[in-house]
Amino acid sequence: MAKSIGVIGGGQLARMMISPAHALGLEIKVLAETEDSPAKSAATQVGDYKDLAIVREFAKTVDVITFDHEHVPLSVLETLEAEGFKIEPSSKALRFAQNKLDMRARLTELGVPCPNWAKVESSQDLDKFINANGGVAILKTPTGGYDGKGVRVVRSSADGADWLALGEPLLVEEKVNFVRELAQLSARNRSGSWASWQLVETIQKDGVCAEVHSPASNANYELASNIAKTIAEGLDVTGVLAVELFETAQGELLVNELAMRPHNSGHFSIEGSTTSQFEQHLRAALDMPLGSTKSTQSFAVMLNLLGQNDTNTFGLTDRMVDGASVHVYGKSARVGRKMGHITALSNESLADARQIASKVWQGLQA
Amino acid sequence: MAKSIGVIGGGQLARMMISPAHALGLEIKVLAETEDSPAKSAATQVGDYKDLAIVREFAKTVDVITFDHEHVPLSVLETLEAEGFKIEPSSKALRFAQNKLDMRARLTELGVPCPNWAKVESSQDLDKFINANGGVAILKTPTGGYDGKGVRVVRSSADGADWLALGEPLLVEEKVNFVRELAQLSARNRSGSWASWQLVETIQKDGVCAEVHSPASNANYELASNIAKTIAEGLDVTGVLAVELFETAQGELLVNELAMRPHNSGHFSIEGSTTSQFEQHLRAALDMPLGSTKSTQSFAVMLNLLGQNDTNTFGLTDRMVDGASVHVYGKSARVGRKMGHITALSNESLADARQIASKVWQGLQA
Repeated sequence: MAKSIGVIGGGQLARMMISPAHALGLEIKVLAETEDSPAKSAATQVGDYKDLAIVREFAKTVDVITFDHEHVPLSVLETLEAEGFKIEPSSKALRFAQNKLDMRARLTELGVPCPNWAKVESSQDLDKFINANGGVAILKTPTGGYDGKGVRVVRSSADGADWLALGEPLLVEEKVNFVRELAQLSARNRSGSWASWQLVETIQKDGVCAEVHSPASNANYELASNIAKTIAEGLDVTGVLAVELFETAQGELLVNELAMRPHNSGHFSIEGSTTSQFEQHLRAALDMPLGSTKSTQSFAVMLNLLGQNDTNTFGLTDRMVDGASVHVYGKSARVGRKMGHITALSNESLADARQIASKVWQGLQA
Repeated sequence: MAKSIGVIGGGQLARMMISPAHALGLEIKVLAETEDSPAKSAATQVGDYKDLAIVREFAKTVDVITFDHEHVPLSVLETLEAEGFKIEPSSKALRFAQNKLDMRARLTELGVPCPNWAKVESSQDLDKFINANGGVAILKTPTGGYDGKGVRVVRSSADGADWLALGEPLLVEEKVNFVRELAQLSARNRSGSWASWQLVETIQKDGVCAEVHSPASNANYELASNIAKTIAEGLDVTGVLAVELFETAQGELLVNELAMRPHNSGHFSIEGSTTSQFEQHLRAALDMPLGSTKSTQSFAVMLNLLGQNDTNTFGLTDRMVDGASVHVYGKSARVGRKMGHITALSNESLADARQIASKVWQGLQA
């Protein structure tokens, strides 16, 4: 019998796990939120991932549960783990991806470099932190944020009054004066094997990842890799771990966010690495040997296809230009939405890869 | 609305079209022979591809029909074409892949180099050909053969008596004293664009492809490419065309067989080319621009995973060795069956790629 993996969430990350699951001879099942999800071709159940009974029903049909997103309530996962279901990453690791206050506290314990941070519960706390950090800070809701949501620049406690009024602790962090953003992708299995890809540079646009360059030029690769390994082991992460990093003018690396699943910064690995992040995530979740993360060509550039309007789904058209690999996610069109991505490889230079990708990207515009 | 492509046949070739169809934002539907086909995740209908009503019902659900195999009766395709359904490759091209006598006649008209051949209907005809060609020949049933089936070495008409007794014309060919077998893969769309991959060497074992090396070393690449283009244009082929070639000691290239669909000799292109044969087949069938066939690394070696027994499905195991890409087809195990394949790439040499592939192959053995 083929081993079966269950993915909670039917987004593009689940969609991109389908192909390596087939290639490896695994059975893949998806618990999707809606009938028309990007991963619908593997969806065996549609339902609310916050509902214990629904997730349990799904869990019974697979050998191991993993995720397309980190929003399944911890209480649901803890209950299922107590009942003997296998979940990778486990609730013990996942809580640090779900709760940014827990994450900051644990990383600080592990000695991992973070921006200055504090837990704040009152406007006095918040103003004190802002004043101590140059009059500006980043306020975050500990849970539920992604792609710039749940994150706000504050210059006084008044800017966070509405969130403080909710009565839950908030996370405040120094506004790091970074020169660029990097991401260190790696994966770890239950047996403790760990493997990292090359450090990449990520370029955001309006808080959303627009572009990824692999490898990042002239960075402290060893430090980034050590940080990722410390986190993967210290938090007992299984599956893919993405560590988003700020690089400062002094070459410091500070951890920004974590994700414990395939991540936008690793889409280049489908063509750019012997083993893609999607295949590696499946291998890691099943505690199988990890695959080689060797680059297939020296340079890779990934551009996100962000929604331009209500109609352009970036599908195959006569205007399609050649040379890069196009992935569309089968979503309905919406401005700013991640509709797909393209990856171009080169043995020449990042500039060459970017030029190839850019031409293809132009051809897909409305 | 996404364009939809319908594939008749649910084998591994259809299975490997699913991933690029998703990546390109196409809807893919499969008419499979059985419930548990390799392409079952995209199967929308199960039924007999020889039954006009069943194929018509399927054709109504898609924009264009294409194939996983060449066994759909020509009469079914001609009827559907007359009714206005789009089929790529068309019945006009496909008849040359279905009937080897028609193929030989047409290639000879086009001046494409073939082994000596004749149409035989009697033991007299057959003995005459055998005697004129050194006392040995290859006898073939014009239709229905593949992977060594419907092909037989004959030294006298007695060796073909049972086939002759069926009362249908047979194809007899000289037994070419070849030094190796090559395959030229290319694709053509309805608008006439044509693109070829590098010429590959194919290594057979018991009449079944066991291994493919890309590129073939020291061959007449230009001649092979010209032959493929002449055939693609002369036979009005749309989609992927595989031309199997014999290379003689004198460096002659003689056409052995044709296939008008993705082909075992092109599986390396999934990782080894910017555009895989599966993606290209979809692009060509939809008359979209063809993708780049540039190699991603200098050398690629593909090894078929041929069934060893009734249990080894070559799925992900703890013994899995690293460095190559594994594709299993989700078939039940059977000796000699094509259960999957692995591809290794290298910028060093074919020998390096083969060594990587071979290690992975060893790790998957029973």
